[in-house]
Amino acid sequence: MSTRADDRTAAQMRPVTIETGWSAHAEGSAVVSFGNTKVLCTASFTEGVPRWLKGKNRGWVTAEYAMLPRATGERTARESVRGKVSGRTQEISRLIGRALRAVVDTKALGENTIVIDCDVIQADGGTRTAAITGAYVALALAVEWAREQRIIRSTAVPLTGSVAAVSVGMVDDVAVVDLPYEEDVRAETDMNVVTTGDGEFIEIQGTAEQRPFNRAQLDAMLDLALAATTQLTDIQQAALNAAAESRAAELAAQA
Amino acid sequence: MSTRADDRTAAQMRPVTIETGWSAHAEGSAVVSFGNTKVLCTASFTEGVPRWLKGKNRGWVTAEYAMLPRATGERTARESVRGKVSGRTQEISRLIGRALRAVVDTKALGENTIVIDCDVIQADGGTRTAAITGAYVALALAVEWAREQRIIRSTAVPLTGSVAAVSVGMVDDVAVVDLPYEEDVRAETDMNVVTTGDGEFIEIQGTAEQRPFNRAQLDAMLDLALAATTQLTDIQQAALNAAAESRAAELAAQA
Amino acid sequence: MSTRADDRTAAQMRPVTIETGWSAHAEGSAVVSFGNTKVLCTASFTEGVPRWLKGKNRGWVTAEYAMLPRATGERTARESVRGKVSGRTQEISRLIGRALRAVVDTKALGENTIVIDCDVIQADGGTRTAAITGAYVALALAVEWAREQRIIRSTAVPLTGSVAAVSVGMVDDVAVVDLPYEEDVRAETDMNVVTTGDGEFIEIQGTAEQRPFNRAQLDAMLDLALAATTQLTDIQQAALNAAAESRAAELAAQA
Amino acid sequence: MSTRADDRTAAQMRPVTIETGWSAHAEGSAVVSFGNTKVLCTASFTEGVPRWLKGKNRGWVTAEYAMLPRATGERTARESVRGKVSGRTQEISRLIGRALRAVVDTKALGENTIVIDCDVIQADGGTRTAAITGAYVALALAVEWAREQRIIRSTAVPLTGSVAAVSVGMVDDVAVVDLPYEEDVRAETDMNVVTTGDGEFIEIQGTAEQRPFNRAQLDAMLDLALAATTQLTDIQQAALNAAAESRAAELAAQA
Amino acid sequence: MSTRADDRTAAQMRPVTIETGWSAHAEGSAVVSFGNTKVLCTASFTEGVPRWLKGKNRGWVTAEYAMLPRATGERTARESVRGKVSGRTQEISRLIGRALRAVVDTKALGENTIVIDCDVIQADGGTRTAAITGAYVALALAVEWAREQRIIRSTAVPLTGSVAAVSVGMVDDVAVVDLPYEEDVRAETDMNVVTTGDGEFIEIQGTAEQRPFNRAQLDAMLDLALAATTQLTDIQQAALNAAAESRAAELAAQA
Amino acid sequence: MSTRADDRTAAQMRPVTIETGWSAHAEGSAVVSFGNTKVLCTASFTEGVPRWLKGKNRGWVTAEYAMLPRATGERTARESVRGKVSGRTQEISRLIGRALRAVVDTKALGENTIVIDCDVIQADGGTRTAAITGAYVALALAVEWAREQRIIRSTAVPLTGSVAAVSVGMVDDVAVVDLPYEEDVRAETDMNVVTTGDGEFIEIQGTAEQRPFNRAQLDAMLDLALAATTQLTDIQQAALNAAAESRAAELAAQA
Repeated sequence: MSTRADDRTAAQMRPVTIETGWSAHAEGSAVVSFGNTKVLCTASFTEGVPRWLKGKNRGWVTAEYAMLPRATGERTARESVRGKVSGRTQEISRLIGRALRAVVDTKALGENTIVIDCDVIQADGGTRTAAITGAYVALALAVEWAREQRIIRSTAVPLTGSVAAVSVGMVDDVAVVDLPYEEDVRAETDMNVVTTGDGEFIEIQGTAEQRPFNRAQLDAMLDLALAATTQLTDIQQAALNAAAESRAAELAAQA
Repeated sequence: MSTRADDRTAAQMRPVTIETGWSAHAEGSAVVSFGNTKVLCTASFTEGVPRWLKGKNRGWVTAEYAMLPRATGERTARESVRGKVSGRTQEISRLIGRALRAVVDTKALGENTIVIDCDVIQADGGTRTAAITGAYVALALAVEWAREQRIIRSTAVPLTGSVAAVSVGMVDDVAVVDLPYEEDVRAETDMNVVTTGDGEFIEIQGTAEQRPFNRAQLDAMLDLALAATTQLTDIQQAALNAAAESRAAELAAQA
Repeated sequence: MSTRADDRTAAQMRPVTIETGWSAHAEGSAVVSFGNTKVLCTASFTEGVPRWLKGKNRGWVTAEYAMLPRATGERTARESVRGKVSGRTQEISRLIGRALRAVVDTKALGENTIVIDCDVIQADGGTRTAAITGAYVALALAVEWAREQRIIRSTAVPLTGSVAAVSVGMVDDVAVVDLPYEEDVRAETDMNVVTTGDGEFIEIQGTAEQRPFNRAQLDAMLDLALAATTQLTDIQQAALNAAAESRAAELAAQA
Repeated sequence: MSTRADDRTAAQMRPVTIETGWSAHAEGSAVVSFGNTKVLCTASFTEGVPRWLKGKNRGWVTAEYAMLPRATGERTARESVRGKVSGRTQEISRLIGRALRAVVDTKALGENTIVIDCDVIQADGGTRTAAITGAYVALALAVEWAREQRIIRSTAVPLTGSVAAVSVGMVDDVAVVDLPYEEDVRAETDMNVVTTGDGEFIEIQGTAEQRPFNRAQLDAMLDLALAATTQLTDIQQAALNAAAESRAAELAAQA
Repeated sequence: MSTRADDRTAAQMRPVTIETGWSAHAEGSAVVSFGNTKVLCTASFTEGVPRWLKGKNRGWVTAEYAMLPRATGERTARESVRGKVSGRTQEISRLIGRALRAVVDTKALGENTIVIDCDVIQADGGTRTAAITGAYVALALAVEWAREQRIIRSTAVPLTGSVAAVSVGMVDDVAVVDLPYEEDVRAETDMNVVTTGDGEFIEIQGTAEQRPFNRAQLDAMLDLALAATTQLTDIQQAALNAAAESRAAELAAQA
Repeated sequence: MSTRADDRTAAQMRPVTIETGWSAHAEGSAVVSFGNTKVLCTASFTEGVPRWLKGKNRGWVTAEYAMLPRATGERTARESVRGKVSGRTQEISRLIGRALRAVVDTKALGENTIVIDCDVIQADGGTRTAAITGAYVALALAVEWAREQRIIRSTAVPLTGSVAAVSVGMVDDVAVVDLPYEEDVRAETDMNVVTTGDGEFIEIQGTAEQRPFNRAQLDAMLDLALAATTQLTDIQQAALNAAAESRAAELAAQA
């Protein structure tokens, strides 16, 4: 019996969709939805690397996260207007970048830079985990684009795996997965788990918001997270396969 | 015979669409497209006014314009990260706010504030005129929402008219309307015209980018602009009518 | 019969003076007065161009506008102390720069940079149009200085024309020229017009502050503006001629 | 057999010391050392709360972390001079504040604010965990001071437990505790664990820096962390006991 | 025999002029020249005091110093554009404010604020001492204005004395007064001396730029400074007397 | 008979200590105490010079001063968090840098940079003079380090003398030396005097805080200052001698 407001079981994610090819300009793009949370992820590929990396035969992948002002229930002031990026925004941007770099072989990438922008268009909890999940798809598409363009020529594969992320938490003393805003604000513990497609951990960030958590609770939350990221990995793969087929059809039509 | 890259005649706009009700949170919202230019406009209604207006029985309407980093052909650095809003961004935000306030009866609005956010999701010329055109629709929806909620109770009508905007210019010595990026960068003159639904001027901003323009050229551009804003006014009205019908059906279903 | 507070006719400018050679250091300088509005314009000539222009055999002209804190009726906080330049200041700086560049042949200028500073010493309406009018004179003097110094050696003439500007507006339903502060705050429409010495338009910025304006009103305002900028062009030319004669006398005395 | 540069076993912390009463001004203070890492923690107690908390009968505890410019091997530019706080600094400040608030009963604290400043005087890895460990001691002393001063009069106890933190990681495929800088930079995984004195988790932040980690590795790291925070809790308690005895002697001497 | 480039003796100031009533808006204003150094000083009088002084029956006097970009031989970037005020600018602003406050009886001033703006229009050494000397005149005029307006009603006199300032220095081992830029850059010691009209010291700031100075040199510089500020006091008084006479004539004409 | 709260005579300094070798990382370091005022001074030596000095065969010495937030009786907000360095902080940083450069032969230093950081750990008046006194010691140690490392190879001596500083003031009409906070806030005049070890002046900054001071008072204060800096010079020399002996013993032990 579920006690969740949207009738999900503790282990059930919200409906997840990943739509690729959203942007006319970006080398890779995806709009990812976890329920009412929607994030636009674009990957911008440029040749060359930041100054501090020059001449090292390595590429660079970084990410920036932001929210549109009215993604939230009440309007949030723009960080550009306030003149600085909040601690929360920087923290999430750094998390996304770290998570992606964990599966990038920077040597195989060559001296190229990929910037992933994750702009939250609508927010209902779990924006950072949705962003990571979508960002991986945009990244993979941009890498594919660069290989097709022969900008990346190495035989080595620039991506050594895939990355997906989900939130878990303790709500009313029960471990649950993929918390919407309503659960997020009253969770005793809130945890974000980033894994590879193989089910290994890239990042675990668990915070006791109301009450410390014990080892058994931690284990319960990690079990839910691993099951969910396995599903997310499948959804990512399906989106990438569909994009590849569609691109192949397009090239065939041109030939 | 058209000489335009997209085969339009000099007086022909790109396909224009206005989709309302886009945002789950905002009191009014619209995504407007002028060809490949797409702008998300949200209206955030809050009771109360800024400190400097308190106790004057007047409302306040203001606007903020921004571009997503990869709205453009090459990625643009975020203004939040650079720590300040560019002159261009401020100039356009001020323009949108001024244009909307020209049709707002701030007394009838009461001590309420509406902030219109115009976020360019994809850019291909004419972002500021598309933004104004969509912003009016979001504004009108938010006003309607507040009247339905009885937050605005005045019998006076807060909006005294409608607002639409279009770009015109001299390209290869010919006056043309609604310039995409490709024409914009090589136009001799670039002009943005904001009008009321009645065809009166709210704002004219014309700039000789390559070569001064004479009175006859000015007149030719203004003729094109007025014809185009008349069409835009019809499209805005159709979008608002559709939204009203859909809302009426929803209320009927609830009753 | 005039209804203007200072007894001018609708088509009459305030007394205009342009005093050159004001600064001991600047390569070109002028103090321009439109009635009680006074702007100090200095042109700073430096060899070389900004990094993004290097190696293109082109020069660069830019402008910065600012107000002294007590130029206005009540003291305005310094933008340096507030830590940022306001939208209004940036907008006007950009306008002045654009207006001047419209008559600059950047190839003939060579890889040199001229920065025009327009500092409003006393404000009584029309500061941006006075600034443009004076800035042109400072610019022309700096170009002349560089030709005399043989820093500019091209036979081509770096300035392809002259630039002047004036404000017009609808006040009490009447089109008037050169609005002082008292008229500016209550004008229904406020328009700034920048023209070449030949009477072609460089920039038109018209804004309905209180009430939209129609085509006939627009035409009436433009007629006034063109008549006024013709006068301003003569005053600019007289100031430049006087400066040239004075410089010739100085050189003759040295010989 | 240990493979660690400083001959410690995998489960062995560096020498830990906590010296209280360091500051002549602060209501609570401690200098904490984990080997060569030294952090000065001061607690500043002020009556009243930030505006957004007023009238809610709750107190507020927050923290700020910073490094002296030459705490590090090479000098780091001051954040005050660069004009902004880095993402890393904000992230750690937020972490420390969250960790402390997990054991604060804000109602029992009353409408009072305690700011904990953690300034790293010398850095050799683990600065954030040392800071949390020392911050708790400074906090507890400030709460004790306020109770002695009868500023806090509630019979409820403002601190519901104690907080300690330690870093663990995978280095050369071995789980180790309390990583100095030399191990930190080459660790495959880096994890910071914050616990209560009762051995429950307040925060877990684990990051795969070089290679994802699996569940068994996670468990090994958590085992080490829990053993270490148990030791740290004892050292904190000893430092607080010594401070209380010394204060009692002082008061006895005054009587 | 003088060795100074402008043929002055060591004890001789450059020509000093103080022109009052320069600004149409400010409650007090003066343009002061020490040779080619020209500073516009305006005093802005407002009723009320900053928040931290409220309810203490005291007034506030403060000052801001700035340079126009082309006051100097080479153009200096605007501090507003750079987004912050330099250390030098703040240091001089603080010096001017302190110097003026030394002769202000803040109780007699009542809860009123006077801001003195000192904008250097042309710089040739000694800008801060010229600014202080002119600022006093602007301040005295603003106080007089407020007494005439009966905004200040106390019988006590708000100004307890006058303030003047001059630079002295060691140039080529000789003590000299009022250094122009050319001497300033090569002086062994540079000293700014602020005195009351009675010849007592308000501020002494002496810096060995090239070589330490001894007690005898200090005494020689102070002798020169005191003689010069006596002269400056007379010039200030003459300017204030002339302004008072002119104001009396104006009032007589109105009567 | 002394009237000073801490029973000192007018000419008596507080206990002064200088402890060297405090930092594990810095090339030179010292903690200096003037009574309860404690400042940590570190000297960071790096090869190379700022861009504007390159290729001139000269070195550069600069300083930065800051206070820990709870160095003071009440907590002071961090300048990094406020996003800018206060005028006071910049003024003192500039003073320290100037004072040190007065005894540096930048040619003998070679193209090397030394940055001195002075962080006030506890404040009780005289922080800037204690900082200068300690900064000299850190600087001398860093220079010695670079000579031992043979990074500085010139036979010329980079330091042409030593620098010490002390505060003097008029308190209750009596000239006193080394003012603690309690005297500082009520002093009629506050003066900071920086001298060489030979008793010549590098900087004098005297400010009338409550009442102007006359020539006799100035002379009395300078007499006290010179006597005190003579003592400080001895203490500095003793600290440097002890450090040199300790270093010699260390090298002998290694041999």
